[in-house]
Amino acid sequence: MDWLDRIKWDRDGLVPVIAQEAGSGDVLMFAWMNREALARTSALGQAVYWSRSRQRLWHKGEESGHFQQVHEIRIDCDDDVVLLKVTQLGHEPGIACHTGRHSCFYQRLETGRWQAVEPVLKDPETIYR
Amino acid sequence: MDWLDRIKWDRDGLVPVIAQEAGSGDVLMFAWMNREALARTSALGQAVYWSRSRQRLWHKGEESGHFQQVHEIRIDCDDDVVLLKVTQLGHEPGIACHTGRHSCFYQRLETGRWQAVEPVLKDPETIYR
Repeated sequence: MDWLDRIKWDRDGLVPVIAQEAGSGDVLMFAWMNREALARTSALGQAVYWSRSRQRLWHKGEESGHFQQVHEIRIDCDDDVVLLKVTQLGHEPGIACHTGRHSCFYQRLETGRWQAVEPVLKDPETIYR
Repeated sequence: MDWLDRIKWDRDGLVPVIAQEAGSGDVLMFAWMNREALARTSALGQAVYWSRSRQRLWHKGEESGHFQQVHEIRIDCDDDVVLLKVTQLGHEPGIACHTGRHSCFYQRLETGRWQAVEPVLKDPETIYR
């Protein structure tokens, strides 16, 4: 699959990935993929990342049920960043964050302090059982 | 400025940054910041990145005039990724990409090939003089 050769993998063999909700345009999360994760994402039509903390493939939603259906895979002008357009499955509205929030980017800088500005939609203890 | 201490800088002292257009929700570009770049971005209200290729601070727009006005600075749940909500200045519609396109993410995977799916809005040779 020579489209995978186009990616400029970093020194760890990874590429940064942005997951954006197709309907709302919200940036949901940021993660990493290796070559196998990107190949599986394309084949499966669902996001499969590389977990740097666990050092293994991570099919997003495998524990939470919050899978990401992938509509588009894009790369940037330098061929070293991936953008996914996804539908966040398993809850309405979608929950991408392990804290039970819609998006991982829920902390906003306000007058020199980080403030959580998005609600918890579901208790994480009921997501991960 | 202790809000900067909250960021989990990587082994190179950098943090990944996503720039999203505030009005449209479009993801415009991806870049990196070090501590000084993020401090300057907050103080200036315009995006200042760390150029890894040039190993220096990079005030986005310094050559092209395509500055990014920053409306919000967000961080993710792990405190290791920054999301900027910006207005892309200097051209209408905004040009974030050095290729003269609106967004750097103009290449989409279509049946195993990367296709450029966004138009060039301005000839790069007339942007960088």
